[in-house]
Amino acid sequence: MAKNKVALVQGNAVVGQSGGPTAVINQSLVGVVQGLVGNREIPKILGCRHGVKGIVEEKYVELNTIASDQLERIAQTPSSALGSSRDKPDAAYCGRIFDSFKKQNVRYFFYIGGNDSSDTCRIVNELAKSSNYELRCFHVPKTIDNDLMENDHTPGFASAAKFVAQAFMGDDLDNRSLPGVKINIIMGRHAGFLTAASMLGRRSETDGPHLIYVPEVSFDVDKFLTDVDATYKKLGRCVIAVSEGIHDDQKKPIAAKLAEMSGKQVERDSHGNVQLSGSGVLGDFLGDLIKSKLGIKRVRSDTFGYLQRSFVGCTSLVDAKEARMAGKKAAQLALTGNIDGSVAIQRVSDEPYRVAFKRVELSDVAGKTRVLDPSFIVNNNNISENFRTYLAPLVGKLPVVETL
Amino acid sequence: MAKNKVALVQGNAVVGQSGGPTAVINQSLVGVVQGLVGNREIPKILGCRHGVKGIVEEKYVELNTIASDQLERIAQTPSSALGSSRDKPDAAYCGRIFDSFKKQNVRYFFYIGGNDSSDTCRIVNELAKSSNYELRCFHVPKTIDNDLMENDHTPGFASAAKFVAQAFMGDDLDNRSLPGVKINIIMGRHAGFLTAASMLGRRSETDGPHLIYVPEVSFDVDKFLTDVDATYKKLGRCVIAVSEGIHDDQKKPIAAKLAEMSGKQVERDSHGNVQLSGSGVLGDFLGDLIKSKLGIKRVRSDTFGYLQRSFVGCTSLVDAKEARMAGKKAAQLALTGNIDGSVAIQRVSDEPYRVAFKRVELSDVAGKTRVLDPSFIVNNNNISENFRTYLAPLVGKLPVVETL
Repeated sequence: MAKNKVALVQGNAVVGQSGGPTAVINQSLVGVVQGLVGNREIPKILGCRHGVKGIVEEKYVELNTIASDQLERIAQTPSSALGSSRDKPDAAYCGRIFDSFKKQNVRYFFYIGGNDSSDTCRIVNELAKSSNYELRCFHVPKTIDNDLMENDHTPGFASAAKFVAQAFMGDDLDNRSLPGVKINIIMGRHAGFLTAASMLGRRSETDGPHLIYVPEVSFDVDKFLTDVDATYKKLGRCVIAVSEGIHDDQKKPIAAKLAEMSGKQVERDSHGNVQLSGSGVLGDFLGDLIKSKLGIKRVRSDTFGYLQRSFVGCTSLVDAKEARMAGKKAAQLALTGNIDGSVAIQRVSDEPYRVAFKRVELSDVAGKTRVLDPSFIVNNNNISENFRTYLAPLVGKLPVVETL
Repeated sequence: MAKNKVALVQGNAVVGQSGGPTAVINQSLVGVVQGLVGNREIPKILGCRHGVKGIVEEKYVELNTIASDQLERIAQTPSSALGSSRDKPDAAYCGRIFDSFKKQNVRYFFYIGGNDSSDTCRIVNELAKSSNYELRCFHVPKTIDNDLMENDHTPGFASAAKFVAQAFMGDDLDNRSLPGVKINIIMGRHAGFLTAASMLGRRSETDGPHLIYVPEVSFDVDKFLTDVDATYKKLGRCVIAVSEGIHDDQKKPIAAKLAEMSGKQVERDSHGNVQLSGSGVLGDFLGDLIKSKLGIKRVRSDTFGYLQRSFVGCTSLVDAKEARMAGKKAAQLALTGNIDGSVAIQRVSDEPYRVAFKRVELSDVAGKTRVLDPSFIVNNNNISENFRTYLAPLVGKLPVVETL
């Protein structure tokens, strides 16, 4: 063994995936596997099926025996290959996770997910510490919402942003062709990063989206109608990006208010969040409002829905590469000593675009939410051009379009 | 002038685009321009803005002066570069078109669109004939619905089919990851070709979509619930493709029934068709039904909407090439004599994939609708594997995905 190298604790590794899938979450999975494979001290690298659920139910799949070409194909496949889970483990649940780990002699745990997943890592890690059981817990970031603290951006975001940008480029051309008002609803509960990405394909002042509403700003229906009316009068058309997470000044989501108004049972997940995606109600409501209040005839709405996070064939190459690196980095860190943490992507420079992968404390990421910097928001209804400087290197080249 | 060559009538050409845009309708536009440019007898190639509307309002743009690199960029851009129109000209409107043509000395008219556009060509052409005014009218096919008679398939369909197939591949992986029922609503009023394309990415018996509902079959709500229940019990999940055009056994669209039930004003276009796209109501209704009647908790619906026809970066190469060829063929035909017609794509062989571009009579295409062959429909709720033989060469290679 080389000097300065810490002795590895002998035991198995578990890697899991949690929360909403992304186009590159399997890159991180493969990164973890590649970072660990070949270590004599780690006989098995186990994937847990459907996140923490697979741990407590002992549903594991061996990952170190998979051929490298199959691993590469898995890496390139969107959505969580191991399956995902929306379970939010409390202390008792984490205890069961820990029991399962002891039984399987698991000494390395990697959880790929958002801020809730980092919290799971944190609690399991503390249980291990208080029991003097050596367990190296690492959180690998992933979320299309791009809302993790300590990170410049998160794996999964750029590919979803690319989808949103390309969708808006096409939709704006469609709207030029058959003018009217077009509303597109985009994922994002608290953070407007993905909705803001709708601006990336704009090339001129008349290109849409002409209005962008993010959850960082309280949504005012009257102001919205005034905005739409002004744009429509000026351009004869109006393309609008709306985050599914828009809420009133009491922080109540507009989508939840609408669902309640229509007498629907409001669905909540295990984190207490009202279900926003998987329904067209918000777009339909805003469209009907414009028709009835502004008297505009051709008003359409689309809700991008789950396509944003899982569409095959629209992955950002930078995103794919960084997601792989984040997984590998977590594995490397776990092999350096009895430490824990979350891997964070931090930007070193814009031009040339360079990032660094760093270990940060689990508690600095767990359960916290990062939102759009106010400097990116213009007039409460648009996104500034300097957001492009931030986003463009992550997404890469967009298709070239030309108008007559 | 070479022997056997028909003398060209001296005059200008007009080319227009009509109906819903596609990803390759500009390829056909550029094909027409390239097919005509350089003919001394045709001093001007004019594009009419927003279809027939641009003709009667004399809003023309000169296309023969555009540099070839810009033309290529336009060809690669989705949506109608000239703008489109939903106007359905009656005899009086066609009279005004003809008047505008005479004023501009237009002797060549190309209209890129669906079956309504071919009908416009037909009427204008008859007016010219009865006035002894030499006018060569050609219809160039386009529609994502793939519902034109005399055609094996139509330009625009394959790119939309590619989008639908890739969306379902990703969405099925997403549904594997977080199991439940997922409904996706796809464009198509009378023909189920685009909805059927949802099957193209299936690789195994457990891959979704597990159920496919096309407008060729009357939709029965009870049968639908039975189908979903059976699939969900078998697989623990269910991915469903539903055409927006599904209707009851009285031919009334389900979407229109739902809109009326909810007290909404039903919107109709100038062709008398009820507006189906641009709303999530159908998916939401079917989802609520499954929740309440089958007691399944995780039920989501997405309506693919306008993304299907205009998304940038998901064009089929075969589609792009054929759309260009269809435009060129129309130009070539118009230069061969005082004839009219519609260009049709007919398949010569499946393997190797080969097609021929032929002139057919306008009246054989005008106002008619082609639907899915019954042999493609299985058990009234699915699409047969032999539809793949038909569709695969049009779409080209799909991204490779892999599961664990």
